[in-house]
Amino acid sequence: MAVQAVESSTTSSGSSVSLGPAVALSCRECGERFPLGPIFACVECFGPLEVAYDLPTGDPEGLRRRIEAGPNNIWRYAPLLPVPADVADKPNINPGFTKLVKADNLARELGVTGELHIKDDSGNPTHSFKDRVVAQAVEAARAFGFTTLSCSSTGNLAGAVGAAAARAGLRSCTFIPHDLEQGKVVMAAIYGGDLVAIEGTYDDVNRFCSELIGDPAGEGWGFVNVNLRPYYAEGSKTLAYEICEQLGWRLPDQLVIPIASGSQLTKIDKGLKELIELGLVEDKPYKIFGAQAEGCSPVSTAFKAGQDVVRPQKPNTIAKSLAIGNPADGPYVLDIARRTGGAVEDVNDEQIVDAIKLLARTEGIFAETAGGVTLGVTRKLLENGVLDPTLTTVVLNTGDGLKTLDAVAPTSGPTAVIRPSLDAFREAGLA
Amino acid sequence: MAVQAVESSTTSSGSSVSLGPAVALSCRECGERFPLGPIFACVECFGPLEVAYDLPTGDPEGLRRRIEAGPNNIWRYAPLLPVPADVADKPNINPGFTKLVKADNLARELGVTGELHIKDDSGNPTHSFKDRVVAQAVEAARAFGFTTLSCSSTGNLAGAVGAAAARAGLRSCTFIPHDLEQGKVVMAAIYGGDLVAIEGTYDDVNRFCSELIGDPAGEGWGFVNVNLRPYYAEGSKTLAYEICEQLGWRLPDQLVIPIASGSQLTKIDKGLKELIELGLVEDKPYKIFGAQAEGCSPVSTAFKAGQDVVRPQKPNTIAKSLAIGNPADGPYVLDIARRTGGAVEDVNDEQIVDAIKLLARTEGIFAETAGGVTLGVTRKLLENGVLDPTLTTVVLNTGDGLKTLDAVAPTSGPTAVIRPSLDAFREAGLA
Repeated sequence: MAVQAVESSTTSSGSSVSLGPAVALSCRECGERFPLGPIFACVECFGPLEVAYDLPTGDPEGLRRRIEAGPNNIWRYAPLLPVPADVADKPNINPGFTKLVKADNLARELGVTGELHIKDDSGNPTHSFKDRVVAQAVEAARAFGFTTLSCSSTGNLAGAVGAAAARAGLRSCTFIPHDLEQGKVVMAAIYGGDLVAIEGTYDDVNRFCSELIGDPAGEGWGFVNVNLRPYYAEGSKTLAYEICEQLGWRLPDQLVIPIASGSQLTKIDKGLKELIELGLVEDKPYKIFGAQAEGCSPVSTAFKAGQDVVRPQKPNTIAKSLAIGNPADGPYVLDIARRTGGAVEDVNDEQIVDAIKLLARTEGIFAETAGGVTLGVTRKLLENGVLDPTLTTVVLNTGDGLKTLDAVAPTSGPTAVIRPSLDAFREAGLA
Repeated sequence: MAVQAVESSTTSSGSSVSLGPAVALSCRECGERFPLGPIFACVECFGPLEVAYDLPTGDPEGLRRRIEAGPNNIWRYAPLLPVPADVADKPNINPGFTKLVKADNLARELGVTGELHIKDDSGNPTHSFKDRVVAQAVEAARAFGFTTLSCSSTGNLAGAVGAAAARAGLRSCTFIPHDLEQGKVVMAAIYGGDLVAIEGTYDDVNRFCSELIGDPAGEGWGFVNVNLRPYYAEGSKTLAYEICEQLGWRLPDQLVIPIASGSQLTKIDKGLKELIELGLVEDKPYKIFGAQAEGCSPVSTAFKAGQDVVRPQKPNTIAKSLAIGNPADGPYVLDIARRTGGAVEDVNDEQIVDAIKLLARTEGIFAETAGGVTLGVTRKLLENGVLDPTLTTVVLNTGDGLKTLDAVAPTSGPTAVIRPSLDAFREAGLA
C-alpha cells in the first residue's frame, strides 16, 4: 500500500508537487525520508510519517512582518505550512485566527492570578478545530490531483470535509456510522456531497475506509485522515502560531490541550518549537498538559502509571469527539508531557458538564464536551497544585456547544415557568 | 414612561453619560432631540428615537488608518458608534469582522457575472448578527448604571444576551415563550443567567416585558430591545462598515438584507450614508433589497401594492427569526427600498430550504432559515431581472444552520445506507 502510494508522489498530470516549504515526508520512528505524496506509513518500519520542511530561517523580523500583513486566517502562516505560496487566492473556507479570549472572570473563579486565556476554536467556519486540518488536506488533495475528498467520521469531521470540498469545488464522499444523532447527520449531509451511512460502529467505518483506499473504487480519493493524514495533521500547528502571535509573539508558560488521537497536542508542540527555531518567540520553557475524559483515558492512565505504552480502552464518555480508545499519537503525547514538565489528567462526565457551565457563566463561551474536558482538567490540575496559578496559561476550546446539546440539556432549562403577570413574576422570587 | 426615563438620562451616580460620538437621541418622526438616556419613544409624537452623532469628519485618511489599526471586531469602528472610546479594553464578547466570502461558485450557478459576496454573520460568538446589537446594548447598560440585562426573545436573542452579560459581569434575566425547541432553551440557559419561560406566545412575552419596565420590579433593568433599543439597533451599522471596508473601502452596488423588524436594513442604510458623508467611500448610488418569507411578508406585500402602510400579518413560516408580523421599521424599509431603487420580495418555505442547500453546496456555508430567505429572494430577483447580475452584490447571512436544523433535517440525510463491504459500496453506485 505505502509502496504503491510512493509511486504516485507526483500529480496525475506528471508535474512535481509544490507544497511551499514542505520538502519531504519523514518517518517519526526511523527518520527515513520519502518524497511528498499521499502516503502515511514508513515502508521501512511502518512508523507514521510527518511533513519535513525547509523553513524560512534567518530573517525573523521580515517573517513576522510578512505574517502580520497576511489574511485573518491560517494562511497568514502559509510560509510555515505544507501549502502552495498562493494558497490564500484559492477557494477554501479559510479557517483560523479565532479569538484568544483573556478570561479574567474565569481566572478569578479558579484562583488564577496569572493570565488565563481561552483559545476559542468554536469560531471556525464549521465551529470546530477540524476546519484547520481539513483545509491543509484540501491543498494536499489538489496537489496530488485527487478530485474526491473523503473521511471516516463520527460526524464533525464529515461536516468539515463537506464544507471544505464544496468551497474548493471538489467532490466529497464521507462515511459515518448509521446511528448518529440527527444534528450531526444533517451537518454532514447539507453540503451536498455523498454521505454514506455504514451499518456498524465507527471502527467498522474505519476498517471499510482502509479497504476502500486499496481498492480501484477508491482511486483518486483523498481520505483526509488516512492517506492525506501527514498534511492534514499539520493544520494543528496553526493553533500554536496563533496563540503566540495573539499573546504578542510570546510563548505561554502552560497549555492545556484535549487528547483524542493526540495528534493535535503533538503538532502544537511542533509549532511552538518551530517558532523558537525561527526566532519569532523567545526560547524559554513551556509545559504542555493533556486532557482526557475519564471514560476514555488511555493516555492519562499510562501517564499516571509511569508507562510508555498506551493500552487501548473501550470508550464510554459524553465527550464523543475525544472518544478514541486507541490513540495513534498516545506515546508521543506521553513524551511531550514528560519532556516539558507537564502532565496528563482526566475528568468524569459530571466534571465535564460543570466545566462547560463554568465557562459559559464566566466568559459567555458555550463549549462542546471536549472544551469541558479541557477546562475540567485545568481546574483539577489547579486544585492539585500541578498547574501554577501565577503563570500565563492557555486552555483550548476546540468545538461548539451547539453540537453537543445532549450533554447539558438535562440540567439547562428555565429558572422558572410563569404566567405572564407581574404577580407571578414576584412570586417566582426573581425581581 | 418616556418622561420618567428622560429624567434618568444620567447614571444612578449622577455622572453624565459618555458614549463616544453619540450626542443625543433624536425622533425619527418629528426630529425632537433628547439627552442620551434609556428611552425609546418621543414624548412629543411617540415616534421612535435613534442615536444622533457628532461624527469625526474632516480627516478621512486619518480615520481610515485608525479603523484599520483597530481590533478585528466591531470596536474598530468605535469612533462611529455609541460606545465609550475605551470600549475595546472592557470585557465584552467582541463580535463582528466576520467573513465577507467572495462566492464565485454560487455566482456561476446563479448566472451572476459581477462580484457576488456573502456577508457571513454565523461567525459571530453566538453565531448570529444579534451579538452585534447586544454588544452595543451592554455598553449603554453600563453607561446608564443598569446591572441586569434583559430581553424578550424567541431564543436567539436570549442566548446572545446571556453570553454578553456573562462576559461583561452583568446579571441577566431573559424571557421566552414556554414552548421553544430544546436547543434554543439550552442556548438561552447555558450562560447561567435567569431564564423565565412565559406561559403564552411571544406577543404575551413582549407585553409582559413592557409591563415590567414600568414596574419597580424592573428597576435597574436594561431591556436590550426595549429601553436600550436606540443603542442596540446601532450595532447593525457595523455590517455596513465591514462590508465596505472588506470590499476595499468600496460601496457595493446592490445589497440583499433580511427583514424582521426592519431595523437592521435601516441601520445598514444609515451606516452606508455615514461612510459617504465621512469620505471613507466614494459617493455613488447603491440599491437596497429587502427579503421576507412568504409566510410573514407584511413589508413585501406593501411594497408590491405600492402602499406606505404596512398591514400586520399572523406569521406562518419556517423562518422563525424573521417572523415579526407587525414590523416596527416596516415603513422606513419601504422608504429606503423605493429611494435607492431597490425592492422587497418574498419566497416560500420550499424556496428557503432550496436556498439553504444551494449556499451549502456551492460555498460550504450552512445558513439558518433567515439566510435561506435572503438568498432565495436574491435568486428570485435575479430571475425576474430586478437584480442586475453584472454588478457587485452583497447578500447577508445573519445566522447559523445549526440553530434551525428542523428546516432541513427531513430532506438532508445519507445518500446511501450500506453494510461495511466494498461490494455493498459498488452496488450503491457511488464508486
